[in-house]
Amino acid sequence: MTGPIVVINPNSNQAVTDGLSRALEPFRLGGGPAIDCVTLAEGPFGIESQVQSDEVVLPLVALVRRRDDASAFVIACYSDPGIDACRSVAPVPVFGIQESGVLAALARADRIGIVGISSLSERRHRLYMRRMGVLGRVAGERALNMSVDETARGAGTFARLGEVGRALMGDGAEALVLGCAGMAVHRAPLEEALGIPVIDPTQAAVAQALGAVLARRM
Amino acid sequence: MTGPIVVINPNSNQAVTDGLSRALEPFRLGGGPAIDCVTLAEGPFGIESQVQSDEVVLPLVALVRRRDDASAFVIACYSDPGIDACRSVAPVPVFGIQESGVLAALARADRIGIVGISSLSERRHRLYMRRMGVLGRVAGERALNMSVDETARGAGTFARLGEVGRALMGDGAEALVLGCAGMAVHRAPLEEALGIPVIDPTQAAVAQALGAVLARRM
Amino acid sequence: MTGPIVVINPNSNQAVTDGLSRALEPFRLGGGPAIDCVTLAEGPFGIESQVQSDEVVLPLVALVRRRDDASAFVIACYSDPGIDACRSVAPVPVFGIQESGVLAALARADRIGIVGISSLSERRHRLYMRRMGVLGRVAGERALNMSVDETARGAGTFARLGEVGRALMGDGAEALVLGCAGMAVHRAPLEEALGIPVIDPTQAAVAQALGAVLARRM
Amino acid sequence: MTGPIVVINPNSNQAVTDGLSRALEPFRLGGGPAIDCVTLAEGPFGIESQVQSDEVVLPLVALVRRRDDASAFVIACYSDPGIDACRSVAPVPVFGIQESGVLAALARADRIGIVGISSLSERRHRLYMRRMGVLGRVAGERALNMSVDETARGAGTFARLGEVGRALMGDGAEALVLGCAGMAVHRAPLEEALGIPVIDPTQAAVAQALGAVLARRM
Amino acid sequence: MTGPIVVINPNSNQAVTDGLSRALEPFRLGGGPAIDCVTLAEGPFGIESQVQSDEVVLPLVALVRRRDDASAFVIACYSDPGIDACRSVAPVPVFGIQESGVLAALARADRIGIVGISSLSERRHRLYMRRMGVLGRVAGERALNMSVDETARGAGTFARLGEVGRALMGDGAEALVLGCAGMAVHRAPLEEALGIPVIDPTQAAVAQALGAVLARRM
Amino acid sequence: MTGPIVVINPNSNQAVTDGLSRALEPFRLGGGPAIDCVTLAEGPFGIESQVQSDEVVLPLVALVRRRDDASAFVIACYSDPGIDACRSVAPVPVFGIQESGVLAALARADRIGIVGISSLSERRHRLYMRRMGVLGRVAGERALNMSVDETARGAGTFARLGEVGRALMGDGAEALVLGCAGMAVHRAPLEEALGIPVIDPTQAAVAQALGAVLARRM
Repeated sequence: MTGPIVVINPNSNQAVTDGLSRALEPFRLGGGPAIDCVTLAEGPFGIESQVQSDEVVLPLVALVRRRDDASAFVIACYSDPGIDACRSVAPVPVFGIQESGVLAALARADRIGIVGISSLSERRHRLYMRRMGVLGRVAGERALNMSVDETARGAGTFARLGEVGRALMGDGAEALVLGCAGMAVHRAPLEEALGIPVIDPTQAAVAQALGAVLARRM
Repeated sequence: MTGPIVVINPNSNQAVTDGLSRALEPFRLGGGPAIDCVTLAEGPFGIESQVQSDEVVLPLVALVRRRDDASAFVIACYSDPGIDACRSVAPVPVFGIQESGVLAALARADRIGIVGISSLSERRHRLYMRRMGVLGRVAGERALNMSVDETARGAGTFARLGEVGRALMGDGAEALVLGCAGMAVHRAPLEEALGIPVIDPTQAAVAQALGAVLARRM
Repeated sequence: MTGPIVVINPNSNQAVTDGLSRALEPFRLGGGPAIDCVTLAEGPFGIESQVQSDEVVLPLVALVRRRDDASAFVIACYSDPGIDACRSVAPVPVFGIQESGVLAALARADRIGIVGISSLSERRHRLYMRRMGVLGRVAGERALNMSVDETARGAGTFARLGEVGRALMGDGAEALVLGCAGMAVHRAPLEEALGIPVIDPTQAAVAQALGAVLARRM
Repeated sequence: MTGPIVVINPNSNQAVTDGLSRALEPFRLGGGPAIDCVTLAEGPFGIESQVQSDEVVLPLVALVRRRDDASAFVIACYSDPGIDACRSVAPVPVFGIQESGVLAALARADRIGIVGISSLSERRHRLYMRRMGVLGRVAGERALNMSVDETARGAGTFARLGEVGRALMGDGAEALVLGCAGMAVHRAPLEEALGIPVIDPTQAAVAQALGAVLARRM
Repeated sequence: MTGPIVVINPNSNQAVTDGLSRALEPFRLGGGPAIDCVTLAEGPFGIESQVQSDEVVLPLVALVRRRDDASAFVIACYSDPGIDACRSVAPVPVFGIQESGVLAALARADRIGIVGISSLSERRHRLYMRRMGVLGRVAGERALNMSVDETARGAGTFARLGEVGRALMGDGAEALVLGCAGMAVHRAPLEEALGIPVIDPTQAAVAQALGAVLARRM
Repeated sequence: MTGPIVVINPNSNQAVTDGLSRALEPFRLGGGPAIDCVTLAEGPFGIESQVQSDEVVLPLVALVRRRDDASAFVIACYSDPGIDACRSVAPVPVFGIQESGVLAALARADRIGIVGISSLSERRHRLYMRRMGVLGRVAGERALNMSVDETARGAGTFARLGEVGRALMGDGAEALVLGCAGMAVHRAPLEEALGIPVIDPTQAAVAQALGAVLARRM
């Protein structure tokens, strides 16, 4: 029997984990692997700074080691914290949502745009995409400049997403990646409003995990 | 209701289509979209040359236009023939197995290797990967130099896959893409033998199609 | 005796072919190869979409096979349709005007700009230039957004060329490529008006064909 | 009336200039521009080191300023000495044979190889091709490691060219550039022997100059 | 008064710190800043794995916060652990020895080679250099495949350095970076033996720190 | 005993040399090498054009040959004139201030901006940085468009530096390089005003020279 795909929310905000789980409901299919969304108890309430991102690495490694029933892991924070460390200890594939979101978008368009939460993360994302060797296909990143909390809640979020999305289209983006784990609820309406593919990175990572897990069944 | 993912075998060899369908069996899940594998009647019996690859473009476009029930398309020939044309007419996502196979491998390793069928295709693949902007992560391509038919049948295929795979590992590859639509049956044993991820590109494309289709359900 | 350089207009508009022939008149020199401009009878009246571009590939291959007297071929549509297929069957060099135009411009300036006809082609050209590995030297592409027909005829064309050319200079372009087979008549006046090199891609391709053909005489 | 294309041999060896002139004989066509091959009197007898290459810059600039009848210039030394300075003072196009040779090869094959004279120049050529932004298409450079004089004269030159050319094909080269002004005589036989395009860079530069000059006649 | 340059050895092996301090003795000049070499008490005895590298990040951040007298920091482990986090909290420049070593080598040669300790780190270094955008100038990395301890002590180290260095020269390296904090003692003899520049990365980082600190005095 | 670091001002304006010497005063430390600033008598009064830059190459080579007491050379003109030639004859390291300034900035920020004197040099700098392979990390270059003389003297220089620096920050620059040998006096105030690192390239080159020279003492 195939073990679950374990999706880890590295912050300790259970509401975020619950939102992830709802966004992944369509990926729970008859006969397919379970999709377990878990909260990293040791994580900060939100991950916004570099130091917070580094704080979760060792707890993530410990969790990955503990969950030896998993068939794959997804680290559901857009900084992909601990991706190298978790990969070095996991016997199964580990997906980071930034990497997966970007790769999924590259299958849908030539030049992509990143909708960030805060412009403070732009540099971190850029370094990561350059490390991936795909920066030549990135039209740009623009930030909502709202807090994670606001984006989760605020009524103005969708309007702001539209604004930022259109600005990225002006920069040349032909598909967008939502640069945050908690905005899946806006994916479809934004895609509808803008007329170009919009990728939720957690869904993208889970689809890739599903692909890896199901391929092993043949 | 979600329409089927339509996987098109652009050559007219039904045995290849049947093989694809078997390789995709694990991706047919309860509540998920159907996965329809269809043969392009107008295609040549096998696609090996550039001209054969170009011959199928218009028939593919016609098929894509006809199948307006599809929720996504997969073009299951490693040259990704007609990918631009099909995308320009399809109202739903179109995936090429070369592009999808390469992107899936990039989520599993830093440098990847391509196991080609014939060294005659190496240049075509290289140009396509440079167009994708990911050539910097390709350790190399090496060919089995067997006919598609031989690879489908021949007892020596697996041994040759091992040889070529190990040579690519020597070139620096940390994951492999099978550069052909019809070798899924060898994926798992080769992965086992080599100890690094091996990607079947049709499975990879279907996983990405599944991701796009399921995301629309939320 | 050296055979003719065969310049193929892949659309079926004879007026375009006649214009090409006039633009190439200066390249018909005493003792040099003939320059035959031919119309692809099977082509659409104009090539604007991806599908139209793909429609001409097999007829081009057939024509190339038929014209075994040619010393070189030039495919005179800026999408370079069928370039790979024609090269795979021709025993003599085949030049595409996009590739040749871009390479000619790179010998005249560091960063180049492309004057497109329609912004719908921008993505196609970008993918082709990335495939060529030269995108790092492209300052940008901007489109006239006039129909091929209008550009061939309209009085406003030159004014619009000036506008678009100056905008590309603002983007950093130090030489321009006219991204269309039928604008040679504007080349010299535009170069004069802007003060930077302007390349007609058909002339560029024929010059390169001439170079290849003449080199064989020594 | 169109002025001559002035081809400058930056070394003071008249025999080299005479060889250049013979190699360019096929480019002298009825009604076309004259092709004047001139020797830089102030140049060293041969240019092999970086300092020798720098020594000819100011004399080249002076010559370019003097020859105000030229319709284009070609600097016929594979280091392209003084190319930036000459371009900054010439009112007409200036072509360097390294740049032109490389660009001509890129129109004939995807990956190219450079046949150098001495491995001491490999670094200089690499820096120049990286500056051009085309290093991603260079399979490699390999040197004859014979003196310019030997290559001009020696019976073993052709055999050595074949050896080096085949080694470059092993590196992935699909076309070759002769990395020296004086080997045109070997171009056709080498192309014949290896079965891939071989470019003489001076012929390539003159073809490009011809293209620029003739285009102005329309 | 200028505060000290604080060089942090992120492992808890005091002998390594002492060796660093000796290697930096020439950089302690009259009137210049002090160079304080400190041991990270919380670090593992050696840093070889990805997880060990991640373990030191938060202790490094704490140390950087504590040492508010520093005029600059150097993180003296070739993985540059915690470089992003330390930079995000330090009010003064922070240098990582990998980054500094590579940049110093780029000022001495066109293509560089990395002498690693273990081939297990090759991928980590490659990702870091791609993130830096300089991978195009890296001829390769080859490992001694000795433990850090062995390299610090073993008589065979120098011989092995010579072997690996020569192999890298065969790959095209024109300067070498010692990919480890503790091999400064071999720098000069290896440079002498191989005839190309050899960079000790800690010395390189301290020189850059010195540059930053002294520039502020004017 | 270690010889002096010889810093060559390639123009013949002694006031510039004197300014360099003052800017380097902090780098003259007890027990460290002397830092000799010398004027190239044969140089033009200022180097602004490509030809002027080429004019100083041979005199620089002669000076480098003459000063056999030097432990390292710095060529203190932002075009790095003669860098290849001087390196080919010097038995000790030669640093160019453009190369050194850019590399120093890359150790301080991800994307850098260049403050040029005149927009006429932008192309020359771009070609040089592309040759270095680091153009992907350059956010842009913007020029003061004042003469060297004005910048050395004029009261408006600092205000203009601020304007240009802020515009580069808008382009994405996170550190700046002063693209001229004579603006060290503005470095600290500009860094203070803008809040990002500002690099004086001559100080950067001398720091790197110091690093190379001091490393040899161990």
